[in-house]
Amino acid sequence: MTAHQTEILPPRLGEPYLLTPGPLTTSFPVKEAMLKDWGSWDDDFRAMTRDMRTRLLALLGPGADDFDCVPMQGSGSFCVEAMLGSFIPKTGKALVLANGAYGQRSAKTMEYLGRGYIVLDKGDYLPPRGDEVARILADDAAITHVVAIHCETSSGILNPVEEISEVTYAAGRKLLVDSMSAFGAIPLEVAQVRYEAMVSSANKCIEGVPGFGFVIARKSELEAAKGNSHSLSLDVHAQWANMEKTGQWRFTPPTHVVAAFLEALRGHEAEGGVAGRGARYARNRDVMVDGMRDLGFETLLKDRWLSPIIVTFFCPASAAFEFGKFYELMKAKGFIIYPGKLTVVDSFRIGCIGQMDENVMRQVVEAAAAALSEMGVNDASPPQAALEERAKLAA
Amino acid sequence: MTAHQTEILPPRLGEPYLLTPGPLTTSFPVKEAMLKDWGSWDDDFRAMTRDMRTRLLALLGPGADDFDCVPMQGSGSFCVEAMLGSFIPKTGKALVLANGAYGQRSAKTMEYLGRGYIVLDKGDYLPPRGDEVARILADDAAITHVVAIHCETSSGILNPVEEISEVTYAAGRKLLVDSMSAFGAIPLEVAQVRYEAMVSSANKCIEGVPGFGFVIARKSELEAAKGNSHSLSLDVHAQWANMEKTGQWRFTPPTHVVAAFLEALRGHEAEGGVAGRGARYARNRDVMVDGMRDLGFETLLKDRWLSPIIVTFFCPASAAFEFGKFYELMKAKGFIIYPGKLTVVDSFRIGCIGQMDENVMRQVVEAAAAALSEMGVNDASPPQAALEERAKLAA
Ligand SMILES: Cc1ncc(COP(=O)(O)O)c(C=O)c1O
Ligand SMILES: Cc1ncc(COP(=O)(O)O)c(C=O)c1O
Repeated sequence: MTAHQTEILPPRLGEPYLLTPGPLTTSFPVKEAMLKDWGSWDDDFRAMTRDMRTRLLALLGPGADDFDCVPMQGSGSFCVEAMLGSFIPKTGKALVLANGAYGQRSAKTMEYLGRGYIVLDKGDYLPPRGDEVARILADDAAITHVVAIHCETSSGILNPVEEISEVTYAAGRKLLVDSMSAFGAIPLEVAQVRYEAMVSSANKCIEGVPGFGFVIARKSELEAAKGNSHSLSLDVHAQWANMEKTGQWRFTPPTHVVAAFLEALRGHEAEGGVAGRGARYARNRDVMVDGMRDLGFETLLKDRWLSPIIVTFFCPASAAFEFGKFYELMKAKGFIIYPGKLTVVDSFRIGCIGQMDENVMRQVVEAAAAALSEMGVNDASPPQAALEERAKLAA
Repeated sequence: MTAHQTEILPPRLGEPYLLTPGPLTTSFPVKEAMLKDWGSWDDDFRAMTRDMRTRLLALLGPGADDFDCVPMQGSGSFCVEAMLGSFIPKTGKALVLANGAYGQRSAKTMEYLGRGYIVLDKGDYLPPRGDEVARILADDAAITHVVAIHCETSSGILNPVEEISEVTYAAGRKLLVDSMSAFGAIPLEVAQVRYEAMVSSANKCIEGVPGFGFVIARKSELEAAKGNSHSLSLDVHAQWANMEKTGQWRFTPPTHVVAAFLEALRGHEAEGGVAGRGARYARNRDVMVDGMRDLGFETLLKDRWLSPIIVTFFCPASAAFEFGKFYELMKAKGFIIYPGKLTVVDSFRIGCIGQMDENVMRQVVEAAAAALSEMGVNDASPPQAALEERAKLAA
């Protein structure tokens, strides 16, 4: 128990834990903060918006003064699109580093925008490494921006953003980061990792409820973004300029979700900020992964690449295993897990984020053990193809 | 008291009524519905999404089978942009009928899209009439779509959409309607008014909390919209196709806001649907407008154009009147009002929508009377310029 550790309360009776990478299980005070209506024009709500922006910026550490925080209505993908459309000029070209669904989504967004881009596609989970990024940048002078996914939530891999940032700026290009599922639990301090802008959303590691996201960007980039966006709603410059001038969101904000998020930010601070939150999640992961491995499950990734956000397990080879049934059994025991997103082999995912601690993770493992035995699965080890697939990681 | 009328409970102690056109004062059960976390992938939440779509479509009356409902993350403006970008082809041309801020916003959205458009700009509040729309359509064969604002919330005018629809289809063009602040309280049944698509949002006449909106469109238009959108996030076709296939939103939905909205839809039905809701709002308006006129205030609009959504009043000419002070006095008495949006004369607005009945409206009038006397305003009548401005309406 560290000085910072805060009490984790279970969901109300009969409610399952969400072992999913957002929406996730939030604290009751976070939800209770939504029991009031706010006028979006009123001073009280403007003060809440201001407080939220200030608290988020503080998570960047020393040097945060050069950045500003622009909350944006919609889901996280809306913020990614807003970032790409606002900061990559019409004449720019992006190198999108993809190793899963969210990298692919950024590439698809560039396609919609009709702006130049190429993709380094590493498949389902292999990490994009600094040296290969450097080679691509050296070969293609037209590339102006690199787009990286911090934690690629579809496999749970923690991509090496520091390494990517170094080669990007060494080549005189700019970095944009989708830190949706990592920000708030994994450090992204501007003094450690250089980037122009990043996005995350309310319902990930800060543990709010879903309904908006936020773009954090260097002020010089925000200034320069004027007139760049393909979309009125997703124009980061316009949202920022209006907020600076009036203290208001341009269009109706999700007032209740913002109130919940402010409460979540208070909880985040009480837990010791990024370090405290990240430590709890890492402990969640360690306890859960150890327990699952004891049951015979295998992780897709080697420990070095395992994020404290979400972990992918191979489905057991046993003919008695069926994911739909496993899901229902786990749900009946109070745990909502997540299907996998790999294209080659069957998998499922268990999230480590949300209002849960290692005690809950022990119960998750117990529930998985019980579910396996109810299904008549004696051996949880994966098919040979899965292990061959994984062997590529070492190569 | 009609059979349908439901009990209107006051906000909790110390909380003001929001006399604003959304966010508005919602019922406590609506907010209470947010005290739980849902997995967005889970069957329970899919069932909620399905239920919501079905209930919204039912509000279209007979003929609704030809339409479908596509909820969309973000604020109402995001939905307007999604509708324009998805249904007006890249080679199309829109005639935007503007008489206030929201018509102007649709025009601005077309500008961002880089698609063809012209604006019929009627200024701050004059209604666009059928005959002038017909003339413009006759003169410009390139126009494919007419964009109309149902209730232009910036003045509170209820635009004549039936008349506009008739001339639009008589000329072989298509109608898109921004019914943000009207849908759910003012009929927009497809058997009465022909249109291809309309948008509204969670926090208006259905009385949910803000966080998403919805596009209701003819299925043939939804099919035809494939590949048309300028934006991945705002692609109505893609959102629809995914929902039809998987029952899920493409990207993380605002789960709690959706739960609140479902509860709001139940309240809407219990009140007698569009007719019941509209009747309460009309009564709110009548009681409030009568009372304010008794105090000497004058409305911007003649009765014929007054919507039951929100009403614009001229600020009194008296030198003792100051809107900022009036706002604070009203707030201290428990009522949050709204500043005006007219460009020519000073004004303010009072909303009639949300969990309020005529008893509350009487208290609003009493509060206004007390505020005037505290400010030392003996005469609430507007300046001569305001009356001259209004005289244009008759012309
Ligand atoms: C890395 C990453 N990017 C983007 C997204 C998309 O966010 P949303 O589902 O809120 O649109 C997610 C969602 O989990 C994510 O993990
Ligand atoms: C007619 C109309 N259109 C569009 C909007 C924009 O909605 P939002 O503020 O949710 O973006 C509003 C908001 O009041 C409106 O009344």
